[in-house]
Amino acid sequence: MGFTFQKHADIKYLHNQSLLAKARQYQPKINHHRVKALAVVNLCQNADALNGVGVTKVKDIDELASQPLKRGDKLILDFGDHYVGQFRIHIKAVGSPMDAPLSLQLRFAEMPAELMSDNSEYQGWLSKSWIQETHEHLDVLPATLELPRRYSFRYVELTVVDTSPKWQAIFEHPVVDAQSSADIAKVRPPKLGDPELQAIYQVGLKTLEDCMQDVFEDGPKRDRRLWLGDLRLQALANYTTFKNTDLVKRCLYLFGAMPSEDGRVPADVFTKPSEVPDDTFLFDYSLFFISVLADYEDFTANKQVLTDLYNVAKRQIDVALQQVSKQGELKLTADYPVFVDWSDTFDKTTSGQAILIYVLKQFLVLARQIKDPEIQVYAEKLTSLEKFAKQHLFDRRVGLFMSGSQHEYNVASQVWMTLAHVFSDQENHQLMQLTVNKFFPIQGIATPYLYHHVTQALFEAGLQEEAVKLMKAYWGKMIRLGADTYWEAFDPEKPNYSPYGSLALNSYCHAWSCTPVYLIDKYLK
Amino acid sequence: MGFTFQKHADIKYLHNQSLLAKARQYQPKINHHRVKALAVVNLCQNADALNGVGVTKVKDIDELASQPLKRGDKLILDFGDHYVGQFRIHIKAVGSPMDAPLSLQLRFAEMPAELMSDNSEYQGWLSKSWIQETHEHLDVLPATLELPRRYSFRYVELTVVDTSPKWQAIFEHPVVDAQSSADIAKVRPPKLGDPELQAIYQVGLKTLEDCMQDVFEDGPKRDRRLWLGDLRLQALANYTTFKNTDLVKRCLYLFGAMPSEDGRVPADVFTKPSEVPDDTFLFDYSLFFISVLADYEDFTANKQVLTDLYNVAKRQIDVALQQVSKQGELKLTADYPVFVDWSDTFDKTTSGQAILIYVLKQFLVLARQIKDPEIQVYAEKLTSLEKFAKQHLFDRRVGLFMSGSQHEYNVASQVWMTLAHVFSDQENHQLMQLTVNKFFPIQGIATPYLYHHVTQALFEAGLQEEAVKLMKAYWGKMIRLGADTYWEAFDPEKPNYSPYGSLALNSYCHAWSCTPVYLIDKYLK
Repeated sequence: MGFTFQKHADIKYLHNQSLLAKARQYQPKINHHRVKALAVVNLCQNADALNGVGVTKVKDIDELASQPLKRGDKLILDFGDHYVGQFRIHIKAVGSPMDAPLSLQLRFAEMPAELMSDNSEYQGWLSKSWIQETHEHLDVLPATLELPRRYSFRYVELTVVDTSPKWQAIFEHPVVDAQSSADIAKVRPPKLGDPELQAIYQVGLKTLEDCMQDVFEDGPKRDRRLWLGDLRLQALANYTTFKNTDLVKRCLYLFGAMPSEDGRVPADVFTKPSEVPDDTFLFDYSLFFISVLADYEDFTANKQVLTDLYNVAKRQIDVALQQVSKQGELKLTADYPVFVDWSDTFDKTTSGQAILIYVLKQFLVLARQIKDPEIQVYAEKLTSLEKFAKQHLFDRRVGLFMSGSQHEYNVASQVWMTLAHVFSDQENHQLMQLTVNKFFPIQGIATPYLYHHVTQALFEAGLQEEAVKLMKAYWGKMIRLGADTYWEAFDPEKPNYSPYGSLALNSYCHAWSCTPVYLIDKYLK
Repeated sequence: MGFTFQKHADIKYLHNQSLLAKARQYQPKINHHRVKALAVVNLCQNADALNGVGVTKVKDIDELASQPLKRGDKLILDFGDHYVGQFRIHIKAVGSPMDAPLSLQLRFAEMPAELMSDNSEYQGWLSKSWIQETHEHLDVLPATLELPRRYSFRYVELTVVDTSPKWQAIFEHPVVDAQSSADIAKVRPPKLGDPELQAIYQVGLKTLEDCMQDVFEDGPKRDRRLWLGDLRLQALANYTTFKNTDLVKRCLYLFGAMPSEDGRVPADVFTKPSEVPDDTFLFDYSLFFISVLADYEDFTANKQVLTDLYNVAKRQIDVALQQVSKQGELKLTADYPVFVDWSDTFDKTTSGQAILIYVLKQFLVLARQIKDPEIQVYAEKLTSLEKFAKQHLFDRRVGLFMSGSQHEYNVASQVWMTLAHVFSDQENHQLMQLTVNKFFPIQGIATPYLYHHVTQALFEAGLQEEAVKLMKAYWGKMIRLGADTYWEAFDPEKPNYSPYGSLALNSYCHAWSCTPVYLIDKYLK
């Protein structure tokens, strides 16, 4: 997930101190490990790489210290893989005594293509403050420059803005203090016969690792915060890999502690300087609080968390069901939109109905565990929602679900109805086969978030071959374009597209894209 | 003083640890006092101000916190006077929760005109690293931004590079932790009948105060280091004002501890990360080591310093005298140039001869105190230098000193011969009166350093009215153009000139211009 334009200055929030205390109790230990830069590289043309930009090695990192830099000189360090952490480098002066400060610009990039952009020209709507760039002045050398901010990068471009005509700067020992609350030692990756799938798995694993910090972040470069819909996928991926259940628990308590006064869980929360709910509400994201809780219970069978948070979960269903008619039809409203995907070019009504069914089924599992006396009410609502979907949203003639007043057929509706298992396995197989025939190759979808649901729907519908093909065409293509971690946004038809007007603003390590580790583990191992 | 292009990577230096230990022993205590910004101001046209740029008040500083700033918004804080120190400001976010870092640019200016320049376009030869500008990222608000570097400024321009579309930044409580090793409480300024002279005195006092730091700095904004010729004037000004003799002692030991292997004292030294002599040598600056020591002895009668440093002083004379012919003519060389002034458009030979005479007379005072058995040798050298000056450099027909093979008449030659008292008081009076008639208003001199010597020569020659007139025309004009402290360079005919191609690089608080406090105290009290 990322930025939204919602502003709700009027909304008040609860701050359940008991739940916040539990959230703090499970604050993770951050693991640090120091990684040295591998090489000095140059940008080069590479038709196979993102935006046609790759790198070529210029020299070993050990030769860095033999290269004095003066005004305007620049070089690019390559750390060999994606890392999240603090950058440090030792700098000394050679020549005459240092008669002026060193002025230095540093740019951090996840992908080489980012280094092609002139960031000073960026005028897009996303905050320029996300651009991973800093200017530093060093009054006294030798010194170790240790940047206080955390960056997300593989490449570091150093530009000497100026020394003086009398001396030059020498750089040595560039390192990153790489940080994650995930412990890679706990992961036993599956041995896959297919090397392409193995690579797809590994890149997903690295993506998840680098997004696991103080909370599950959406992206460590940009936004850096906990989104509920993203958390759902991260948690699922985490159960099959790092198994850091405390971090999921922390995030559940954070959301559970700070609903709005009407009970809705916000789409995202901040944790610094203290815990703050964002003023953004998404119909599906609020519901996914239930989904994350149910998945967590399924994996851990931890009754305490369920006891603590059941009422919050139930409130999400209750709020959502207020928008459902007696006939079982979900009526969406503009001020509580359903996300499904970034694209606003397709109708999301039927997707919303399917997500509500999907989540309500998970809620019923929890209600049974908690022995909720009102369980029957929810069971009846489920029946009514499913019945409406089958009778009024499914076009028997065409064999596809329709969405909205224009009876639009789109991918997301079929996918979410499949995931919600409104139909039998056999019907789902037909539905997704028709979806493949009608909509593939997919057009106009740019998020790994929706591609994940499409892929999972294929698996769920027994179309394993199509699912693997899609995984290779989508996540595999990111790797072929140079990805060390998976991206926030990717349209295979327009690989160089930035939703923000500059690749420097794209997040090339974004957690909602890490799910091949989950899909491979669940369906292919 | 400022930058020079000299490079002498081949020269080796002594590091007399005993003298360096004494230099460290007298490291001053830095006095801190917190000063609040006074107002928010705008730049405005002002024909009377430097480069036609003044400021108008927009609001009281107390109203600052009621002004939320978003992308591209900027404001200028006015501290009401010039200060040297660290800047601090408190920042908070208003609106939706802070969903992106704050990116902030800060520019510090001694004069409003500096804020007109686009620093990114600077391509001059002086290091861009001196531009007082910084970019800061704050990931978490509220926070107090406390900049680690020291700046020299009256004005601070804050530009919000970006917040996000959802929130704005509020700034409050801007303060400077002003720093100086001078103690203004120790100064009893003279009560002068003339308010213009009183103002000239006060601005000189502030200039000196702000340049007194860990050493006597040439300018706290740029170069920030100890130059020997500048020290001479600062020490004289200090004796009449702050009377911080330990700081002079520290600086004398620093120079005395680190001559080159051939014995010459470098023109300047650095003190961070440790004591380092610069690879720059100026004939007159090396000699002024003697002058500073003699002035110090004259003011303090401290025999220990004289004992410790006499041999270093003597070595400067010995080296200089190697360049004097049997007839008493100084022969200058290209690799040990005489400074006199930044301008290279006039011949400096006769000025060099005069400076050597001036310093040799001070040396003889020291030699007598130390009872140097070789004193007679130096007395004879003085006679020979003076005789040559009178017989071969003075043009009796014209009544002026000539300089160089082209027999050039220039201001500096007359001034330094007057200061050296080669002639009688009566003759000096005639010489300087003729200098006024022939060369005033002065053309082509842009340093307060040389203007100081011209003014002092007028006083020494009994031309007090002309001296005061010049002081008002020169230092007084800086005040009329908006100076809070005196400038590194100023040509009254071209007030907006920058030797560096940008006013942002000019130092508007430069110690060698502080000398009205000394001149007023010595000649007008």
